Amino acid sequence: MLWSGWGDPAKARELPEQVRRLLHDFLGVRAPGTAAVALESVRLPPVALPGPLLEALAKIVGSAHVLTSHEARVRHTRGKSTPDLLRMRTGDGSDAPDAVVLPGSHEEVAELLRVCSAERVAVVPFGGGTSVVGGLAAARSGFAGVIALDLGRLDRLLSVDLESLVASFEPGVRAPEAERLLAGRGLTLGHFPQSFEYATLGGFAAARSSGQASAGYGRFDDMVMGLTVATPSGTLDLGRAPKSAAGPDLRQLVLGSEGAFGVITSLRLRVRRAPAERRYEGWRFGTFAEGSAAVRALAQEGPLPTVLRLSDETETMIGLAKPDAIGSGGSGGSGCLLIAGYEGAFAAERQAAASAVLERTGGEPLGAEPGEAWEHGRFSAPYLRDSLLAAGATVETLETAGFWANLPRLYDAVRLALAGALGSPLVMCHISHVYETGASLYFTVVTAQEGDPVEQWERAKAAASAAIVEAGGTITHHHGVGREHRDAYAAELGPVGVSVLQAVKARLDPAGILNPGVLVPPAGPA
Amino acid sequence: MLWSGWGDPAKARELPEQVRRLLHDFLGVRAPGTAAVALESVRLPPVALPGPLLEALAKIVGSAHVLTSHEARVRHTRGKSTPDLLRMRTGDGSDAPDAVVLPGSHEEVAELLRVCSAERVAVVPFGGGTSVVGGLAAARSGFAGVIALDLGRLDRLLSVDLESLVASFEPGVRAPEAERLLAGRGLTLGHFPQSFEYATLGGFAAARSSGQASAGYGRFDDMVMGLTVATPSGTLDLGRAPKSAAGPDLRQLVLGSEGAFGVITSLRLRVRRAPAERRYEGWRFGTFAEGSAAVRALAQEGPLPTVLRLSDETETMIGLAKPDAIGSGGSGGSGCLLIAGYEGAFAAERQAAASAVLERTGGEPLGAEPGEAWEHGRFSAPYLRDSLLAAGATVETLETAGFWANLPRLYDAVRLALAGALGSPLVMCHISHVYETGASLYFTVVTAQEGDPVEQWERAKAAASAAIVEAGGTITHHHGVGREHRDAYAAELGPVGVSVLQAVKARLDPAGILNPGVLVPPAGPA
Repeated sequence: MLWSGWGDPAKARELPEQVRRLLHDFLGVRAPGTAAVALESVRLPPVALPGPLLEALAKIVGSAHVLTSHEARVRHTRGKSTPDLLRMRTGDGSDAPDAVVLPGSHEEVAELLRVCSAERVAVVPFGGGTSVVGGLAAARSGFAGVIALDLGRLDRLLSVDLESLVASFEPGVRAPEAERLLAGRGLTLGHFPQSFEYATLGGFAAARSSGQASAGYGRFDDMVMGLTVATPSGTLDLGRAPKSAAGPDLRQLVLGSEGAFGVITSLRLRVRRAPAERRYEGWRFGTFAEGSAAVRALAQEGPLPTVLRLSDETETMIGLAKPDAIGSGGSGGSGCLLIAGYEGAFAAERQAAASAVLERTGGEPLGAEPGEAWEHGRFSAPYLRDSLLAAGATVETLETAGFWANLPRLYDAVRLALAGALGSPLVMCHISHVYETGASLYFTVVTAQEGDPVEQWERAKAAASAAIVEAGGTITHHHGVGREHRDAYAAELGPVGVSVLQAVKARLDPAGILNPGVLVPPAGPA
Repeated sequence: MLWSGWGDPAKARELPEQVRRLLHDFLGVRAPGTAAVALESVRLPPVALPGPLLEALAKIVGSAHVLTSHEARVRHTRGKSTPDLLRMRTGDGSDAPDAVVLPGSHEEVAELLRVCSAERVAVVPFGGGTSVVGGLAAARSGFAGVIALDLGRLDRLLSVDLESLVASFEPGVRAPEAERLLAGRGLTLGHFPQSFEYATLGGFAAARSSGQASAGYGRFDDMVMGLTVATPSGTLDLGRAPKSAAGPDLRQLVLGSEGAFGVITSLRLRVRRAPAERRYEGWRFGTFAEGSAAVRALAQEGPLPTVLRLSDETETMIGLAKPDAIGSGGSGGSGCLLIAGYEGAFAAERQAAASAVLERTGGEPLGAEPGEAWEHGRFSAPYLRDSLLAAGATVETLETAGFWANLPRLYDAVRLALAGALGSPLVMCHISHVYETGASLYFTVVTAQEGDPVEQWERAKAAASAAIVEAGGTITHHHGVGREHRDAYAAELGPVGVSVLQAVKARLDPAGILNPGVLVPPAGPA
């Protein structure tokens, strides 16, 4: 993974001339962005942890698994949001951990938490490092130091129960590796978020992730049947049945807890038989409102495709649903592009029935090509971002969800807020996760960099977040809370909800060492 | 509702001669059970709450809504488990509340909680009064008194959002009334537990209920999009979107909290368009193992029927799936009866596809008759219980859930434990809630009363609960925790999980007035 950007540097893309022209003519991009410094030139704070403490950690995990090298620290600094990348490009490594510690077992994690609690060392659980909400930038203040708890050594498939279709994994398994391990048994998890190539299973659970095939496979929280969690106060082992009436579902308290309550050390996940066929196709609707009504009909009447994505007029025109094709063949056309994919049991029957709904609701079938183009480029968009940053444009995404009746208000509010903060940015939107009662809205924003691009974006983001809270949406549907959404999340939950989180945090992590500053607002004076 | 039994006294049933013979010949029932005393003869503790405190409560809700009459107190004593009924039949009203208080608004609930916290009055939220796990029997010790907080006046449908298919209700609406109110708009909730005729929406949420049509409509927790909860520490208002990645899902902390964290004062529920047709039918499988494999195939490959219930050999023989027909036409036959129901969109297509799976997995189609007989008697079983108690037999149900691979072990363990405790009881079982990764097991036990029937049953129940915990199942799939399952639940959660519940309880209900003794084991010395 590129330390200052996304993904495999070999896959980096030059911007097509057409996109450069678009940036220049429509967004007013006049100068390239700041080039990334060399890795060696990133400025890191000195290692704050004293030698004996580092030795105590090494005693637990082995000295080969406590890293304090410049490169290891740089590679565990923050996540992959646009502000994260902009800061790294300028060489700002101020959020770096003092050390990277790689435990090899649940017991080592538990022991690390014990020592770090006693010594007041902040612990940032680190999976794929793909957070886009500041989920990996711990508050240093009040701590002896900060370690990144890299779960990369906990990378095993522990067991597969073919009768129950439950697979047990360690948390550090990356998604492609999980799919590879399962494919050997004819199985799939079916979780394909845009971070797929790098993110880990533990990270999906901790951040309550949702993937591109959520219509068919469900969100990651739907897949989690059981969890083992090491906390400073002991181990939680949850999930004796798919569902239970035995009290509150505490699995749902761990999911989304972003490392602030404990460290997930194993997961029992629902898996499915790998589909024999996959069919992707495109449809065109006249307007976003018409397309929204169509995807709502699919969600409420069925059948749902496995993949369902509806771009608004702007996203369709730019062709963002097919990032590999942007700039290569003119615009994506008028109206709104809908991508539908069908996988697994009854794929053909579901396709026929869903197609009837899409035709009835005004869709024009475009055949397989747009679907296959989407499929081909489904993980490409983050690569494009690096090229845009270099070209002097800021590109970032943000997202929300709400009930159907409230979506138009949310859509308008976010676009208005971004326009107010950025002048005339390019704002694209799609619906990619639908439910019977509502859906998510996922915005991609492109703007010319002006002044300090981090400050410029943070103003826009703050305006958009305030608009989401005000318009009654949730502050995030699949990116998580981290530090970026913490205040908006607190507003969403209300003071009583926040106090519940604080109480849970205080019970499980009395020293407050776990990912401090993330998710849970600090408790005020009692 | 009959105070000493179940339901409408007009619907009480005489036991058919064939059943009397079965009780005599096979279970050794020799003498009738103790007849129920008259309501006036139930022994109640004196009202412990002092007059000024009752006046303070009356000031909040109006004096017409604070009841201390003998009948009101009897009717709010405990729930509807077999031990509850056996105790009431003997006139034991020792768990009666001092008063029944009926608030008329969220604000009145909040104010009652404030006063009761200050005065240390225990508060037992009371919906339909149908708990079968001791969820309504508060611990008195350490409190100035106990009130039943009857939510019957909070009985309104507040709004319907036809676009989002979300209906907002007050908590005291009984299920049939909710269906009636929704039917006027062409909608249904689709939640039909056996307690349907009396239970309330708030109770379903508080106890994490699951209904007979859960395969098609989901569990009640799947239907809850939002909740407003009055707690002694303030109001929680949760649910801005169907799903969110904004931290832990706190709705899932309220669901199943059984009044121990707060009082649900409104619910936003996902509703569906009422089905145009309902098709119920029967199938026969040779063995419970074969039938289990068939329902597992439906759950894992699809399509799922709306209703799915598989009786084991004993339940099939007795004919419990058709309670109205028991004793009227011989046994239910050999093998295992499966009931499948199809409602709503694509009912015919789903029936055809599911039937193909059932045939492939060895099922013999029995046509519509068994399905319609099941549908006719779906809420009748509790009436039968009263007749059996009067005849000198104890009948009670218990249930669990687990992952598919573990179900045979759970099934054997529970039957063995019951046989060990009761000699040779009649133990019937069915699977009525299936998931991709597992299912519930629902046991009905009939035994001759010996000695004190409450003590007799409590020994059997303790043995069955210990067997469930030991065999790795959850202590309840749809009845809840209450007092009866509290210790087993604590064993299931483990000490860290229990401490989380205690921390939440302490934060939301610092005086510990909410349903004390239910759900959450009391915190030990810190």
